Formats: sequence, structure tokens, C-alpha cells
Amino acid sequence: MAAFQWDHIDNKAVDTARILAADAVEKVGNGHPGTAMSLAPAAYLLFQKVMRRDPSDDQWLGRDRFILSVGHSSLTQYVQLYLGGYGLELDDLKALRTWGSLTPGHPEYGHTKGVEITTGPLGQGIASSVGFAYAARFERGLFDPETEAGQSPFDHFVYVIAGDGDLQEGVSSEASSLAGHQKLGNLIAIYDSNQISIEDDTNIAFTEDVNMRYEAYNWHVQVVDWKKTGEYVEDVEALNAAIEAAKAVTDQPSLIILRTIIGWPAPSKQNTGKIHGSALGAEELAGTKKALGFDPEKSFVVDDDVIAHTRLAVERGKQERADWTETFDKWARANPERKKLLNRVLAGELPEGISEALPQFEAGKDVSTRAASGKVLGALGAVMPELWGGSSDLAESNLTTIAGGKSFIPSEHSTGEWKGNEYGRVLHFGIREHAMGAIINGIVLHGNTRAFGGTFLIFSDYMRPAVRLAALMAVPSIFVWTHDSIALGEDGPTHQPIEQLASLRMIPGLDVVRPADANETAWAWKTILERRNGPAGIALTRQNIPVFERGEGDASGETFASASNVARGAYVLAEAPNGTPDVILIATGSEVQLAVEARETLKADGINARVVSAPSLEWFAEQSAEYRESVLPSTVRARVSVEAGVATGWREYVGDAGRSISIDHFGASADYKTLFREFGITTEAVVAAARDSLDAV
Amino acid sequence: MAAFQWDHIDNKAVDTARILAADAVEKVGNGHPGTAMSLAPAAYLLFQKVMRRDPSDDQWLGRDRFILSVGHSSLTQYVQLYLGGYGLELDDLKALRTWGSLTPGHPEYGHTKGVEITTGPLGQGIASSVGFAYAARFERGLFDPETEAGQSPFDHFVYVIAGDGDLQEGVSSEASSLAGHQKLGNLIAIYDSNQISIEDDTNIAFTEDVNMRYEAYNWHVQVVDWKKTGEYVEDVEALNAAIEAAKAVTDQPSLIILRTIIGWPAPSKQNTGKIHGSALGAEELAGTKKALGFDPEKSFVVDDDVIAHTRLAVERGKQERADWTETFDKWARANPERKKLLNRVLAGELPEGISEALPQFEAGKDVSTRAASGKVLGALGAVMPELWGGSSDLAESNLTTIAGGKSFIPSEHSTGEWKGNEYGRVLHFGIREHAMGAIINGIVLHGNTRAFGGTFLIFSDYMRPAVRLAALMAVPSIFVWTHDSIALGEDGPTHQPIEQLASLRMIPGLDVVRPADANETAWAWKTILERRNGPAGIALTRQNIPVFERGEGDASGETFASASNVARGAYVLAEAPNGTPDVILIATGSEVQLAVEARETLKADGINARVVSAPSLEWFAEQSAEYRESVLPSTVRARVSVEAGVATGWREYVGDAGRSISIDHFGASADYKTLFREFGITTEAVVAAARDSLDAV
Repeated sequence: MAAFQWDHIDNKAVDTARILAADAVEKVGNGHPGTAMSLAPAAYLLFQKVMRRDPSDDQWLGRDRFILSVGHSSLTQYVQLYLGGYGLELDDLKALRTWGSLTPGHPEYGHTKGVEITTGPLGQGIASSVGFAYAARFERGLFDPETEAGQSPFDHFVYVIAGDGDLQEGVSSEASSLAGHQKLGNLIAIYDSNQISIEDDTNIAFTEDVNMRYEAYNWHVQVVDWKKTGEYVEDVEALNAAIEAAKAVTDQPSLIILRTIIGWPAPSKQNTGKIHGSALGAEELAGTKKALGFDPEKSFVVDDDVIAHTRLAVERGKQERADWTETFDKWARANPERKKLLNRVLAGELPEGISEALPQFEAGKDVSTRAASGKVLGALGAVMPELWGGSSDLAESNLTTIAGGKSFIPSEHSTGEWKGNEYGRVLHFGIREHAMGAIINGIVLHGNTRAFGGTFLIFSDYMRPAVRLAALMAVPSIFVWTHDSIALGEDGPTHQPIEQLASLRMIPGLDVVRPADANETAWAWKTILERRNGPAGIALTRQNIPVFERGEGDASGETFASASNVARGAYVLAEAPNGTPDVILIATGSEVQLAVEARETLKADGINARVVSAPSLEWFAEQSAEYRESVLPSTVRARVSVEAGVATGWREYVGDAGRSISIDHFGASADYKTLFREFGITTEAVVAAARDSLDAV
Repeated sequence: MAAFQWDHIDNKAVDTARILAADAVEKVGNGHPGTAMSLAPAAYLLFQKVMRRDPSDDQWLGRDRFILSVGHSSLTQYVQLYLGGYGLELDDLKALRTWGSLTPGHPEYGHTKGVEITTGPLGQGIASSVGFAYAARFERGLFDPETEAGQSPFDHFVYVIAGDGDLQEGVSSEASSLAGHQKLGNLIAIYDSNQISIEDDTNIAFTEDVNMRYEAYNWHVQVVDWKKTGEYVEDVEALNAAIEAAKAVTDQPSLIILRTIIGWPAPSKQNTGKIHGSALGAEELAGTKKALGFDPEKSFVVDDDVIAHTRLAVERGKQERADWTETFDKWARANPERKKLLNRVLAGELPEGISEALPQFEAGKDVSTRAASGKVLGALGAVMPELWGGSSDLAESNLTTIAGGKSFIPSEHSTGEWKGNEYGRVLHFGIREHAMGAIINGIVLHGNTRAFGGTFLIFSDYMRPAVRLAALMAVPSIFVWTHDSIALGEDGPTHQPIEQLASLRMIPGLDVVRPADANETAWAWKTILERRNGPAGIALTRQNIPVFERGEGDASGETFASASNVARGAYVLAEAPNGTPDVILIATGSEVQLAVEARETLKADGINARVVSAPSLEWFAEQSAEYRESVLPSTVRARVSVEAGVATGWREYVGDAGRSISIDHFGASADYKTLFREFGITTEAVVAAARDSLDAV
């Protein structure tokens, strides 16, 4: 490690950074200046001295990852992206929090170069950083497990800046416990302990001993107290030393508790809640500038020597990447097969022959879609080494264990049931659904692998903020949600999803996929893996349901359509017996069988019903208007939707004359057949609703 | 404290309890026997020796509260409710997990006598137990603050049994941190550390030091290790001593880490994941019975001496209540005013003159509904001492601070901004929305006060599992959700609700209330407080919106209807100019003003538009068919809904010919006027949609 260098110009750059932050908030009139001001030295240290990053290539495989968990302090990052030459310029800072700018209120992934993750909802950033660190380790195991620690081109660090709010949120507790359990030596968190949140002094609600708590999680904890002398001294060298010490600890994640004064050195608002989330005001801003020797009359001033100095980061980054590339090329020559795999993964491609690898399920048998999913994962896992995942303590229920896979754990945490090592592919989240969601997001954001996490559909509620963030970022996180209706049975209403399917469908950009039988499940997985434009949740049954007898192509006569139609979101599974539907029955998942049975009953009465299986309304919405009209012809106004959940949303598909077979109240504890009967999720109810709808047309 | 008594008959009763649990699961064929078997001694100790409860009066004010956070182990509680004479009988145990039984898969509040809270979703029970403990302290402050500690009829303990799963969930971390902060000496948690969850040995995912973590939260932690000798010895005396020690610690909550062997003494399945969630099977069950000296051929056997002994709890409970009643009556005589208040609160009544106490807001001004809400809370707080609440670190944004109220904190945690004491009424949850939800539920379940908790609407996602449980229990928790649309503005898409309103409406039994102006806000609060049949969430604007000029009664001509109509859920705010609507504009919250403006524009073009304000679709659904038809006449098929969120759900109200002004994608970071314009939430858009709908009719 090189001797620490920190010159006068670095101090000037740091002061410039904090004044730019204050100026930017002042200009737009709102925002969060305080933390950006006091975190400027730490952020500058990371971006200019510590992290291995190349401003000119934000996708560099070997880069250290940076996560700003205190997303409200987006200026902490924006200012460094500007100073370091990542693509932001002064005008971008001036456009903070305005329509169309590259500098929105919170950092947005895919919007601003150099931003690795969208943050803002507190706790999510630090929780996802654990996923980044998981991914870095798994990736190394996939591509370069033999090389000595620290010597592989796949070795890099994950840095995260978290705040008081992050550490109060439960999701960070869950993820931090897992990080310690996993001994993630590649994860370094700087906790900005400024003791101020919106309700001012955090002592009003947050007096726990964070240091001790993180030690209890098996983290390596250090304190860097810039207030320890009584005067406020931004001792960056001490912080750098702590970071170096953290890097040296390879079997624990590191928490560096950095005691700062928020908004320092604003003359009267430093160390108050006021400076957390509001502009300083002209006078306070002028006072700050004076305190730092800047001209109080001027805004957005960056001296030439400062920007010239900080932009050296670009050349430095290029050089670092060039050095790394040598190592990487050496690795590539020595590992041609692994390089081929990496190329495929980087190209976002599935292996050749993936369709052939998919299991085919024999018609006539009864198979739960979770069991089908488990088989599919086994088959996919065999040809996709980059695929990994697991469950939040429901492995045997979710059937999310890739057959033959080892657990991803330090080997000493192997148990009687599960054997593993640091490079295993089976994830164990414990009973921590929220962290699972955030960690899956982190894995996916880190890139170069495909990951999934499972729980019961009801517990999608526990992980909803993480699911929403995946959708907002449009990243392909995969969530496996089994036990997808009241057919969960005896565990009763606390465990039975009612509103979950419909309410997940409302999250913009989330694909909700609910296959109707085992073969739809296989095609659903394939489609989910092929798509990379956003997250998907696959909803699977606990109970066995029939595997439909199908033909090769579209439905016609009594021949059911091929399951490959799943990719279109909704399709005619069974055509009206005479080819001209009197009524359309639209169903999803386990309720499709009821529609199929109802079609038979109606046929006997001379009513021609078409059955539409609708595994994903989102995928269906993407199809051409012609295709959609061909599945749901507007002339056929008699329609029935069938789904064992709330009706909300189905009116859009069934129209004024339509009927919905649904459950709009909580469930109950009993065997699922009783529940379906008592709650009217039956073939008879579908038939009656069809007649009713026909009458209403 | 009396000497600890534990006789042979107690051991027999405990063994009977564990065999009943195993028998009950065996009979239905599914369930969770393991924990119920190994927790039988602890549960028996609590119900028979420790807790002050009266089996014949489950509403007794002075009772100790019991929360089974490990809800899956419902038999732990059911068997004690049977043995202790709380109303369950053997036939109820035999009916476990079947349709209509008193013994559903998880304990359900309001369904089975003696069950204080519905549990099952892990972490919720222990998090809500913190709310119970808050409520006990606040209640004491309200009714009997002067009496010496331990001497008041309002002094009682809150006992909770939690498991490995509970302690992994983030919500319990959040709540536990608050419990330590609050120094809740009245809270005693027994943590059943059996080291087994569904994925078997918890070491696979849970190796943190729980003891140290709870010490970091400022809990008093004890370990009772029944495995310490190498042999398994259920040392109930040691557990009792730990409970007594916990009771003696009055300035910290207590965690008793009880190391047990799950499923003990099942011969081969004890200490495995198998016995956690599945029936033992005939052979294993027989082996268990043999090990305990029970007849392996018989099921549901309870010897007469056992039940005679355990049912003594009924007489004991009556005596305890009689003793308590003396103290209580003495208190009542000495505190006639407080007794009057208690009577009113117990009767579920609001104070007289509540309508007069409500602030009236002057028409013509612009007031945000959050500001109006803040004023209403001040006014209500002045006449309702039982009303308390606060925010998860957004007090100044949510405006949830009851004016003049002190903070509910140990006084030494007072800060520069907030002064408080143990009996204050302003709650500070820190940045812990999920715990806030669970704690509010606990407060409400404890009873005798009214409580609310606030955050941004977007963060309702963080607390959703707690909100759902409130709805499932049908308890009147109140959630204040401000910043209820993209009009939150510059903070951008991570903070802007889009799908939240619609998706909360899907939770059965939750009232979502979104007032259109300041006066609707006042009436919304009144209506929420009057109703006690379930939870409500009130969605409030950040931005200022007009206070409508209104008449006294219904709308007619150009006179707008009175805000008192809010209680009907939806009402005609402004009648069609000619009294006969061509088109109906239905809007909620801040978007009602757009409908009002559109009505004017349309009027100029000779189109008669009626404006319906729909603050609560749930309340509207409760009205008579006649009333609903009068507001939304079926003959008027041209309709437009206006809400700055997803359209999902509105088709139900606007029909096939209707149009919805909505936002079906994520928001963006900019000032809210720009966002409304760019996203088409404008008067012009409403007008255009009205014309469009008229064309479609």
C-alpha cells in the first residue's frame, strides 16, 4: 500500500465539494445539503484515493462498487462524479432536482453514469450492498476460484456509505446479520454517525449501541471520531487508515463508524435537523463560504487548480484499468472455457439448447407448479452455472434448491442438512424476506450472474420495498413466490395471499407470472430468464394441479395450445368448441383448471366457451393490438375472470358485462378443498358466472 | 413473592400438554408440533404460575398480556387455554386447523377467547408486544401516574414468547431497539432458542450473537440453558427465577434466552426441522408417548387429576381479579374524573362536543391536508387525552405532533427539540416504519387508548405486513400517510407513491381515506375515530390545495355539499349545473380540484358535469344501494376518475365507457407542478377525458 498522500489542494477540493452541494440545494430551493457537506471528505477520499474505478468506463468488470445508502444525500455522489470526471458537469449540478436533469433528488440507476444503484428508501442501499458482496464472491468462485486471495481480476471491494436512518431500518439489520454470517471481507461500510435525522437529535429514538450490535453480527467495527478532541477535525488520514485496516480484514465485513457534524461548518445550522433536509438560506450559505475562505458573493465556483487536480482521476483510472486488463487477459488465456462462459453471461445470453434442457411434464399427472419449478431449476442449473438462488428458510416448501448445488456459506457453517462453501450456489437467507429482496437486487446490480430468492407469496408483503426498487431500476431480479392462494390451506389467513397478486401487478415494470400447469412453469422460467428488462415474480401453487394435454401450436377444436405461448402473456388455451366463443373464461394459475372444466359443462349445454390462460398480464400488454384482440375479441362481451384473489384489476379485462370469480375477504384455516368450496372458487361458480355474464350482455 | 411450587402433577400436566399438541397435529395430519412440545413447560409455567390472568374474564383490565409471537406454534397457547379453563375443550383441540374451529392454524384475535393478538407472520408478535408495553405505561400515566411503581391497578406485565424466526425478522430488530430505548421494564420476552427452523439447524443462516445484540439494544438478557448439563433438563425453577429477576428489572425490557430442544422427547425427530412443521407420524408419536409413560395406543388422554389441577386456574384467577378489584375500586373512588374518562374510553365513545371541537377551515385559502390534519390533531388532542401518536422521524413533515404534547420517552432521552417523560403522548419511532405499524397495533390491541403513526405514503410499503394484520384483526389502528402523490415533488420516484393508494385499498377491511380539502380532513378524522371496526389510513397532501366554499347540506346548483358527507365515503360535491349530469367526474384528494375546474370548463361548453368527491371507497361501499345509485346513477355512463396514481380499480366505478386520469408509471424528480403537467394530471386532461367518455357512451 502506497503512503497516504493528502495535500492542500485536496482540502480545497473537499471544501469546493461541500460548497457545491450547498449551492446546488440553494439554487433549486430544496434538498439535503447537510450530509453532503459533512461527508465531502469521506466521499472525496473514496473516489479520489481509495476506490479502484475508471471514470471513463462505468461498466469495468474489475471496479470497486460504490453504494450511497444515504440516497437523500445524492450530492455526496454527484459532486464526486463531477470532480472525478465521470460525465457530470457543473451545469448538471445546477440542474439538481429539476425535470430531466442527470441529478435527480436521489441517485437513479441507469440514469446517471457512475450510479450503481437507486437509493433513497432507507436501509435498501446497505442491504443491497450485502448482495453486491455476495455476487463478487460468487463471481470469483465461478470464474477464478483457484487464484490466491487478492490476486484475481475478480477481486474487488464493495463500499457503502450508510447513515443513522439506514441503521434503524429492519432491512439493514437482517442484511447485516447475513453479512457477518457470510464473513464478507470484501464489504466495507462507512456509517456516517452524525446523530441528526429529520426529528433532529437521534437520541430521541435511537440510543442503542451500534458498535456492539455490529460486533454481535460478526462485523469488524472501528470508530473514527472527528469530534474526539473537542474541536471538529476532519482527520481523513485516520479514516484512510481505518479503510486500509478494513481491507486487511478478509473474514469479516467492516463497519467504520465515522462521527461527523452534519452541515459542518455552517455557522448556525450545523449539527441540526434543519440542515438535513432544507436549503441553508442566503445568510447561512454566505457564512459557510466565509468560514471556508470562499467568496460569499459567488456560487458554483470551482477553481481551475481544483478541477485539474480532481480530474486526474480519469487518467489514473485508465491506468488502473490497463493494469487490471493485463491480469484479466492472462486469466482469460489460462481459462478459455471460463472466458467463454463470461462472454455469454456478459452478452446476456442463455446457453444454447436451453429449450431442450427444459423438462417436459407428462400430461394427465397432477403436479404442483412449485414442484415443476424445482425440476426446472435443476435442469437450468445444470446448464447455467451463473444461476443461483435460494429461500428465506422455506427451501423445502419453495423448492428453490438447485439440485446438487452446494450452499453459499463459509464452510464452517455447514449443517447436518446443508453442506457448503464460500462459492456455493444455494442461498439461505434465514427468515429475512426483506433482506432477501434487497440482496437479490444487489446481486443482480453487481452483474454477471442470475439470481433468485423464494418465499411464500404472502410474504411478498415483507419484501415489497425491495421488489419495487427492482422494478424502478428495471433490473432482472427474480422472486419465487409459492403457496400462491388460499390453497395454502390450514395455516390460515395470516399465510394466505388474497390481495397480493393483484397488488404486485400494480407495481410498474414488475412482471407477475402465474403459470397454469407444470409445462407453463417451464416456459415461464425460460421467458423470465430471457427477458432482462425488469424484475419478475413467479407465483406457484402449493397444491397439485393437472398437467394439461396440449398440442404443438395454437388451440383448435379440442386440442389445447402449446405451453410455449406463455411468452405472450395470455393465450387461448382451449378454443370454444365450435370455434366461435359465446363467452370467454380468463384464468390464471391453479384456477385455469376450473375454467377448463367449466368449458366442458357449458359445452354440454350448447354454450361455447373459450378458455384463456393468462400467466402474465404484463407480457400480454406488450403484445400487438391485433394479437390481444385475437385472444379477447371485443365482440365477445360475456367474460369471466377466475383467480383465487381479489377481483380488483379484472374489470379491465371482463368489462361491464363480465363477472369475476374472486375472493375479496381474508381466508381461513382449513384444508384447501373446503376453502375453495366455501369461498366459491369452483367450476360451478364459473359456470354460473358465465351464464350470468351471457345474460348481462 | 411466594415460594416456587412445582409438583409431580405439574410435570404430568406439562407432559399431557405436549402429547395433546402432538395428538392434535397427528389427527389433522399437518401443523407444527415440535415447538408446542418443547415449549409446554414454559407456557404452562406462564399460564399456571406466573401470569395474573382470569380465565373467566378475558377482558379484565388488570390482566397480564400474553403474546405468542411464534404463532405457528398455536398449540402452545391452545393447550394452555384448554388446561387453564379459558373456554377451549378437548374437542376444540381435536378440531385443530379445520373449517370453523376455534383452533385455527395460527392464533386469531377476536376468534378464540384468551388470544390477545393474531400472530404468524414472524416478527410481528414481538414487535407488537412492544406496543402493548407502551400502552400499559401510557395508560398508567393517563389514569394513575402518582401511585408508586408496582402498586397501581394499571400495573401489569407483557409476556411474549418469540422464536428464532422472530428474532431474524427486521421488524423485531426495529421494535427491540425501541423497547430498549424506552426502558420498558414491563416487557418480558422468552426467546425459545431451539436452533431449528424450517431449513433445520439455524446455523445455516443465523450465527449472530443474539445475547450481545439485545444488550446493545439496552435489554436485560438472561440465559436459561436446559441443555447445559449435557442432558436435557427442563429446569422450570430456573426459568421461573429468571422471570422473577426480569420482573425486578424495572428500567429495561428483559430477554430470557431459553435453550430448548425442539420436539423433545420425540425419539428420532427431536432437534430436527422435520418436527417443526409436520406431524410426527404414528411410530414417532408412539415413541414419544412411551418415553413419557403414556399409553401409545391412546390419543387425547387427559387424566382427571391433571385437568382438576390445571382448572384451579379459574378460581385462582377469580380471586386475583377480586383482589385487584379492591385496589381498582379504591382508585376509582379517589379519582372520579379519571374514572369517568376510563368509562368513556372503555365504552368506545368520543367526548361530547367532538364535532364542535373540530377546526373549521375558511374557504378560499390554500391549505395542505397534512397541515389541516395537524390542526385537527391539536384540537382533538385537547379533548381526547387518550389520543396519542407520532411519526417515524417525519414529525415536521407528517404534522403528527399533538400540539403541546410531551414526548413519550424516558425523560433522560429528551433532546434540544423534544422534551418528554415516560407518560408523554408524542411518539418517536425513528426511521422504523414497520415497527411503528406493529407497535400501533400492539397499543390498540392492549386497549384503552387511541393511537396513530405517521410516515410518507410511499413507506406504507415498509409497514404493509403490520397494516394487513390490523385489517385481519379488525382493530382500529390509525395510519397517517402524508405526501400522498407525485406532488411530493423533487425527491423523485423513490419517494413518490404511484400504486400505493390502489394497492392499500385491496387489503380487505382497511379503510383508505383521502380527503379533498381541509374541511374533509377534519370530518375524515372524526369519522375514523368514531369507527372502531378496523384500521384506517388517511392519505394527505404535501402541497397546498384549495379549501372549497361549501353549503350546509347536499350540493345543489352552484353550492357545494357540506364536508360532513365524508362519512358516506363518496358524495356529490358539486352538482351538474342543470341538475342532470351528462358526465360524472369522480376524484379523490388533491385531484378533486381538477374535477371542480373541469366542471367549470365543461359548463362553458354546455356540458353538465357532476363532481363526486370520493374520500373513502370502502365507506362508500357500505352505503345503501339507493344512496350509491344516487351518487353514481347507472344511467350516466360517461364518467371520468381522477387520481394521481395507478388506474387499477377505477374501471369498477367508471365502467366500459369511462376514462381514468391516472399515472401508471413511476414518477420523476422535479417540482410538482411540472410533474402534474408532464404526466397529464391537469384540468385539460380531465376535460378531454370527459369528452372522450361522452363520445364512447
